[in-house]
Amino acid sequence: MDKQDIKEFVNSNKERFLDELFKLIRIPSVSADPAFKDDVRKAAEFVKSSLLESGADLAEICETEGHPIVYGEKIIDPSLPVVLVYGHYDVQPADPYELWDSPPFEPEIRDDKIYARGSCDDKGQMFMHIKAMEVMNSLNDFPCNIKFIIEGEEEVGSDNLEVFIRNNIEKLKTDVVLISDTTIIANDTPSITSGLRGLSYVQVEVTGPNRDLHSGVYGGAVDNPINVLCSMIDKLRDENNRITIPGFYDEVQELTQEERVQLNSAPFNLDEYKKDLEIDEVEGEKGYTTLERTGIRPTVDVNGIWGGYTGEGAKTVLPSKASAKISMRLVPNQDSERITKLFTSYFKSLAPKSVNVEVTPHHGGQPVVTPTDSIAFKAASNAIEESWGKTPIPTRDGGSIPIVALFKETLDSDTVLMGFGLDSDAIHSPNEHYGLFNFFKGIETIPLFHQHFARLFK
Amino acid sequence: MDKQDIKEFVNSNKERFLDELFKLIRIPSVSADPAFKDDVRKAAEFVKSSLLESGADLAEICETEGHPIVYGEKIIDPSLPVVLVYGHYDVQPADPYELWDSPPFEPEIRDDKIYARGSCDDKGQMFMHIKAMEVMNSLNDFPCNIKFIIEGEEEVGSDNLEVFIRNNIEKLKTDVVLISDTTIIANDTPSITSGLRGLSYVQVEVTGPNRDLHSGVYGGAVDNPINVLCSMIDKLRDENNRITIPGFYDEVQELTQEERVQLNSAPFNLDEYKKDLEIDEVEGEKGYTTLERTGIRPTVDVNGIWGGYTGEGAKTVLPSKASAKISMRLVPNQDSERITKLFTSYFKSLAPKSVNVEVTPHHGGQPVVTPTDSIAFKAASNAIEESWGKTPIPTRDGGSIPIVALFKETLDSDTVLMGFGLDSDAIHSPNEHYGLFNFFKGIETIPLFHQHFARLFK
Repeated sequence: MDKQDIKEFVNSNKERFLDELFKLIRIPSVSADPAFKDDVRKAAEFVKSSLLESGADLAEICETEGHPIVYGEKIIDPSLPVVLVYGHYDVQPADPYELWDSPPFEPEIRDDKIYARGSCDDKGQMFMHIKAMEVMNSLNDFPCNIKFIIEGEEEVGSDNLEVFIRNNIEKLKTDVVLISDTTIIANDTPSITSGLRGLSYVQVEVTGPNRDLHSGVYGGAVDNPINVLCSMIDKLRDENNRITIPGFYDEVQELTQEERVQLNSAPFNLDEYKKDLEIDEVEGEKGYTTLERTGIRPTVDVNGIWGGYTGEGAKTVLPSKASAKISMRLVPNQDSERITKLFTSYFKSLAPKSVNVEVTPHHGGQPVVTPTDSIAFKAASNAIEESWGKTPIPTRDGGSIPIVALFKETLDSDTVLMGFGLDSDAIHSPNEHYGLFNFFKGIETIPLFHQHFARLFK
Repeated sequence: MDKQDIKEFVNSNKERFLDELFKLIRIPSVSADPAFKDDVRKAAEFVKSSLLESGADLAEICETEGHPIVYGEKIIDPSLPVVLVYGHYDVQPADPYELWDSPPFEPEIRDDKIYARGSCDDKGQMFMHIKAMEVMNSLNDFPCNIKFIIEGEEEVGSDNLEVFIRNNIEKLKTDVVLISDTTIIANDTPSITSGLRGLSYVQVEVTGPNRDLHSGVYGGAVDNPINVLCSMIDKLRDENNRITIPGFYDEVQELTQEERVQLNSAPFNLDEYKKDLEIDEVEGEKGYTTLERTGIRPTVDVNGIWGGYTGEGAKTVLPSKASAKISMRLVPNQDSERITKLFTSYFKSLAPKSVNVEVTPHHGGQPVVTPTDSIAFKAASNAIEESWGKTPIPTRDGGSIPIVALFKETLDSDTVLMGFGLDSDAIHSPNEHYGLFNFFKGIETIPLFHQHFARLFK
């Protein structure tokens, strides 16, 4: 397979590739919201059809207790290595809608970028692999067998993926898992993610009096659940932004001085970072740089909070309840379930006797570090070097792809995180976008990965 | 005017009185929400018609920059004293609707109580005065001239009332202002409110990054506005629940030991109070009892909070903004405007450099203490004693009726707070209700007030 042939095929099919991706994006497959249940299934059907149209021998909708998983495969020769592509067709909720410059589910190209929910995360990145299969199919050159596992619950914790994998160990057997759901440093500075943070996500509810009260009649004498919740949240971190949950840091892997120096040598400009976000100052755990705070340190963030009267004007209510969604990003070797337990008992211990507290775990995921000396990592590095003309830098990402640890445990397979997004793509935010350069460059790079992996595997 | 005659007339008209009140309640006159603007006007028209039908010589809709004010009068003889009745026809928002056992704007009688938004606050209590006028009219016995000023913006801060009063000083000239918008201790323990807390109500908005971010990519390095807001709110009180705003307590009138003993001698059962609210413990400013905490001490309460993702499921967002509605109840001699200023500068000083904070004042009101040795207070005491058979106890209420101070300043008139509600009426809450006993007893008591006031005034 020649780099030039790949490029030519991609170039002469750009418009159709985009057209197909846009059809997928237009299906609002928001997995978190039951109102979109039918659309989530429609997106699964679309992925199945795309796989078949792009050269797969087999593609099927696999039912789960939640949203379906799409499985597909192209088996050329049992003696060739297997690449299992993982991706997801579900997307984050698009609200607040009013902050989008164009409708979230009507993709629009501006400044050579596709603006839409899911354009990058992960419809755009996942779809690159389907189109890369079409490229290899049209060139009649498959260096590896390919399997696809494209799920619809990544944004809500992949609750049903584990059962599916455990029930299909033989079918999913692979030599590497390949995922494009991460970012590179910049379009002129390619990188490969070698570490990911884990996640523990909970919802908390603080209940005071059994009904909403008049804040004049009861205020000052009856504890206000919002005030109490704020106080409890504030107690989760100390004045140095260290998390105060007892035992929270026990398993955290500290990097050596040398590793920290290497991590901090990645290109990063704090002034540009602040300018991009329009903030005057960054804040985080004392004693660590911004790259360290997002790469190798755990966090606690409130992702949502609500309680009392939030409408127009003023209402003097002392509410019965206040709630929050709180998530912790974890690093090796923290264990998601253990952290959820530690959080729960600590958070409850913060509550005064005047309220009741409920903590409901949402979902979690284990932190991972992928080996940078594996055949698969080298294959990704070579593929990027060949298509980009630059050696990619290994980086630690702040986000979480909980299933990486799951693949290791269930399929005994390493994962390569060969993502092509940018941190500025605003995934999970209004105006999510994905560069046309990144989309097409990804499609060109993936077949080269298969080629290098097959070569190194021998 | 004989007590018995009043009672008979009320008894033979109970059904019609209720029927009329229900018509008023069915108009959802929520002043805070622009969606109900037309309904607010309809309620004003209804009040105007009721005044005329109940014997007023004059009733008119007076336009303001906001919702209209209804003025009415029954002038018998310029030599008789004037009683100015103040009330409001607007109501609090009814949400959350799902917590109501019957629709908030469809009154329903259960257990001898009227369940509906506004049944007590203040449609029910205000309407007693209109029906009391009908009683006096039918008995052809008016001991005093009566004026009515019924506004539609009490629940949103009475923004346009002051201008109206100042423009109509002569028209509104009175010897006393009579208001039924407060509570008695219990149906077998009547009381008269002799003090009210003031109010300072603000909305705050904390802005961090210029857009919602992925909490994995940025979490730990960029300050989260929700976490920051919680921390700032928590800093408003110390570990003894003392408010930390510098200068906040400077003007607070401390009661003498004797006054405190008297205040605490009012019937109050802490166990029943906790049981009613289903809370295990009350919490408030250290060193004060529950009656003191709601009666003579200032507070700070968060009335509403929102930010980030609050929908179904989980979203790992680090939001751009977080907001809260915060109100402070004030006591003599705190000044509402001064406290709003103190709050604003202190709250802004709590913000780290990583965020911007905006504080928008909503509305305020001055705390008041009404004299218990005035003719008007004695007239109310006598009237209640006559109809109840018990001497009412003077109490301090936690709520705020900001216009009491305004009447003193503009009309140089004292106010009598002769309310007939109960603290358990759930005003401002789902399932607001008002006892039939209280409604009819109120109608019977009001003419007696007029009688005693005229007698004592001589």
